[in-house]
Amino acid sequence: MSRIVQKFGGTSVGDVARIKKVAERIKHTIDQGNQVVAVVSARAGVTNELIARAREISNDPSEREMDMLMSVGEQETIALTALALHELDVDAVSFTGAQAGIRTDGIHTKAKIQTINADAVEAQLNAGKTVVIAGFQGINQHGHITTFGRGGSDLSAIAIAGALNADRCEIFTDVDGVYTADPRVVSSAQKISEISYDEMLEFAASGSKVMQSRSVEFAHKNNVVFEVRSSFNFNRGTIVKEEVPHMEKVVVRGVAVDKDQAKVIVSNIMDKPGSAAKVFQAMADAHIVVDMIVQNVGRNGIANLTFTVPQGDTLKAQKALEPVLDDLGGGHVAVHENIAKLSVVGVGMKTHSGVAANLFTALAQADINIDLITTSEIKISVVVDLDRVDEAARVSHTVFGLDAE
Amino acid sequence: MSRIVQKFGGTSVGDVARIKKVAERIKHTIDQGNQVVAVVSARAGVTNELIARAREISNDPSEREMDMLMSVGEQETIALTALALHELDVDAVSFTGAQAGIRTDGIHTKAKIQTINADAVEAQLNAGKTVVIAGFQGINQHGHITTFGRGGSDLSAIAIAGALNADRCEIFTDVDGVYTADPRVVSSAQKISEISYDEMLEFAASGSKVMQSRSVEFAHKNNVVFEVRSSFNFNRGTIVKEEVPHMEKVVVRGVAVDKDQAKVIVSNIMDKPGSAAKVFQAMADAHIVVDMIVQNVGRNGIANLTFTVPQGDTLKAQKALEPVLDDLGGGHVAVHENIAKLSVVGVGMKTHSGVAANLFTALAQADINIDLITTSEIKISVVVDLDRVDEAARVSHTVFGLDAE
Repeated sequence: MSRIVQKFGGTSVGDVARIKKVAERIKHTIDQGNQVVAVVSARAGVTNELIARAREISNDPSEREMDMLMSVGEQETIALTALALHELDVDAVSFTGAQAGIRTDGIHTKAKIQTINADAVEAQLNAGKTVVIAGFQGINQHGHITTFGRGGSDLSAIAIAGALNADRCEIFTDVDGVYTADPRVVSSAQKISEISYDEMLEFAASGSKVMQSRSVEFAHKNNVVFEVRSSFNFNRGTIVKEEVPHMEKVVVRGVAVDKDQAKVIVSNIMDKPGSAAKVFQAMADAHIVVDMIVQNVGRNGIANLTFTVPQGDTLKAQKALEPVLDDLGGGHVAVHENIAKLSVVGVGMKTHSGVAANLFTALAQADINIDLITTSEIKISVVVDLDRVDEAARVSHTVFGLDAE
Repeated sequence: MSRIVQKFGGTSVGDVARIKKVAERIKHTIDQGNQVVAVVSARAGVTNELIARAREISNDPSEREMDMLMSVGEQETIALTALALHELDVDAVSFTGAQAGIRTDGIHTKAKIQTINADAVEAQLNAGKTVVIAGFQGINQHGHITTFGRGGSDLSAIAIAGALNADRCEIFTDVDGVYTADPRVVSSAQKISEISYDEMLEFAASGSKVMQSRSVEFAHKNNVVFEVRSSFNFNRGTIVKEEVPHMEKVVVRGVAVDKDQAKVIVSNIMDKPGSAAKVFQAMADAHIVVDMIVQNVGRNGIANLTFTVPQGDTLKAQKALEPVLDDLGGGHVAVHENIAKLSVVGVGMKTHSGVAANLFTALAQADINIDLITTSEIKISVVVDLDRVDEAARVSHTVFGLDAE
């Protein structure tokens, strides 16, 4: 008998009819001789409704009370899911995050899981029960309810799978798994059957919407193997796990596109020590995530700094830069939103040379201009014009041999 | 500084605007130099919505899961109420029933409070906080969420007031307090300023809708004084407390009418030992609450049993009686729904005679026929025709000197 943790997101449990479908899916897994722990999110839209109600009361609501409020969403779903399982003669019991022993730090609305005391869940499993656990939530050392922020239910599932020594952790979503590229853009994209944590992280950081980085990081740190698969069919998905030697045979695992980037150019600033630090300190103080950074220094001691930020943050970035430029004694800020980032990712790059050259050549042959470049050990990212990025994705998908036959 | 527990029901917290009003009320009490613990219900309608969703899944939902589901309603309200208090610069913190240390027995959907460990609430109060607690819910010895059934939030408030040694417990509702009669029927009815637990219990059992018996019983047992008052104005309400000598000076405290009764007549059954027991065992097995009982035995060993049941249970009662009659070797069942119960209540009856005689005379003078009679130490109830009961209430209100000048 295998022990399987199955996570279902807000769309999968969006209404009563879908909750019944989820229950059938769980039952199907049990019927194959497995022990199941299900982790479920709030019904799609419920968390936003609750937030809207809080906003009617306060523009700056207490985060502790927001956690108290939002945790209600998953609590509703676990009860309904347990009831739906009962109707299928599955002996199920629901647990809130607190009841499941999920202890977090004290940071409300974006708490981190510290420990899981899985004794209560373990006891229910040993008694033959199927346990349905509220994702996205835990309890801190003071007994206050905490929530984990975006992607929090994935995190719950992975942490619970680790604590229970589960044989499998399945993250059900609306896609079949992780693809070598977005199939809507690159029609020859293929599903990846196995991917390393590091590659998955680079995909997450490169605009792939499948999972949040933090859940992948948590899985990596705790060595939890998980599978991303579709809740609409029974196809095997993508298994995310520690890198194994055969993975390196594939040089590039896939291509990701991030269209949610904008380029900020800070030009004509004095190139003196601390200039760049002041610019990026201002971004950090404004809670703006800076991605790619390039600095050019001209001959006359004048420097240009170029970096990318999420598109939604461009106004905030410009505002935050004004006092910095005053401080630096001048300079100019320009924003370009018509750009996108293309990344090619693969652990095989560590041991294969020529990947960058191949990429740049392929893009040049397609007459696609490269604006910025950054690299990591297993990733090369380039910024290109927004209206050329889809073509860039197809070209690089082909050049690295990723196209399906 | 007084410590005050204030309970607000589902209508009082029905939407965001009303929650803000409740927060203002709490703030008003704090501004008068008091420490406040607020106990709130789910927003009106929310519990029913949740139940409806569960019913879409199951006709016979698990009571444990229903508790998990329904407790969500109050949890939402406590968070919103705390947020509304923050907007008024009140340092408030919300607690679920479990967090407030409310321990119950294991009976789901109608749990009884066993103990309250108020340490966590006490600590918050001592830190200068206002505590908002979810009514209607607690936690059992296994850490499972339980709910208390109808009137459960009143029970929470009274139990918390007891555990915290509160100076006052205020049950806010949509009426100004307990009246000598229903003011819609008896225009000369007056608000009662003080009433004993026993009288309040008899009112609750006699059709007064102000509070459920169990909350009054709990208050009596734990000697918690509480006040029933309106959430719409600042008038003093009715204080419910242990009987004090001066209360006995008023012979009749008030008049209550219960129109939700039906009369069941079981006629022509053999008068042998155990006949009545079989009839009432059948009612108990069908979970039908029997109120007034009268038995007449004729000369020929044939008996008639007459009793009252809630109107909604008449069909169930008839069905449950069929096998009993077969067992008793015959008999006949008739149901009369056009009846109502009038009760006069007062602790003064214990020491005053002639109350029954005065009541019967007054009704006879008004040409109102009495069908059944039952009495307790502090109450006399009579069944009369439904279309005469309002007049009966007015007549008895007058004869016992309850009319306002």
